[in-house]
Amino acid sequence: MGDPEIRAAVLGDVPAIVAMLADDPLGAQRESPDDLAPYAAALERLRRDPNQHVMVAEREGRVVGTLQLTVIPGLSRKGATRSVIEGVRVHSGERGSGLGTQLIEWAIDASRREGCQLVQLTSDVTRTDAHRFYERLGFTASHVGFKLPL
Amino acid sequence: MGDPEIRAAVLGDVPAIVAMLADDPLGAQRESPDDLAPYAAALERLRRDPNQHVMVAEREGRVVGTLQLTVIPGLSRKGATRSVIEGVRVHSGERGSGLGTQLIEWAIDASRREGCQLVQLTSDVTRTDAHRFYERLGFTASHVGFKLPL
Repeated sequence: MGDPEIRAAVLGDVPAIVAMLADDPLGAQRESPDDLAPYAAALERLRRDPNQHVMVAEREGRVVGTLQLTVIPGLSRKGATRSVIEGVRVHSGERGSGLGTQLIEWAIDASRREGCQLVQLTSDVTRTDAHRFYERLGFTASHVGFKLPL
Repeated sequence: MGDPEIRAAVLGDVPAIVAMLADDPLGAQRESPDDLAPYAAALERLRRDPNQHVMVAEREGRVVGTLQLTVIPGLSRKGATRSVIEGVRVHSGERGSGLGTQLIEWAIDASRREGCQLVQLTSDVTRTDAHRFYERLGFTASHVGFKLPL
């Protein structure tokens, strides 16, 4: 297999991204692959924001991975800028190929280029394989992640 | 005591905000209250971004609390927009006054007004009092929070 290209997502990638978001134990219950309009609208908004990077990994013409990187300036830690990784997905046919590692390493490198002092993410407590994956990449499970649906 | 006013932070609030960030078991080691320049630069950047809300609570002319709310559009959960709360601090003389609750309730209401479907935050695993506080406000400790310093 050739090396994947990691590039900014465009509108034409939306069906492949949503298919990956939905092909997931948690995502299956909360995505709507039959109605792509809200995803397309969200991507248009994201592409206008210089602090947002929705990326896809493409291999041999197919979109096989995605993540969202958000750059967040802040006051704490001496005015540190941090980044947040969300929505990491790898196509089921690509799992174990090292593509997840390549995506996260892209996000870490991009965070450095953007002047971030910290990269952070949260992972559902049930995703224990993902936890081991992030720890192998150097992340520390130092925080509890709280969510409140509105 | 009069009700606090919760308003957008301005440059003149930086000394009071940094004093609160530093007056904290974790913040004491990572803030620099003697050098406010990086904080002022960060606040200027934050104030130009419509997705960023650095707020202070003011009571009787004194800044007694702060938080940062970031609005993050996204693709997952049907193109849901979420918000992230960071840097919550209440002045030591105000703890137990309900001000923390008022700040978080402001952030929840603001997130609704911005069209967010989810509010999230992470809290260091050592801040067990904070964890109970967020659970009382309706948050669920559903995620593990990973960080990687760069």
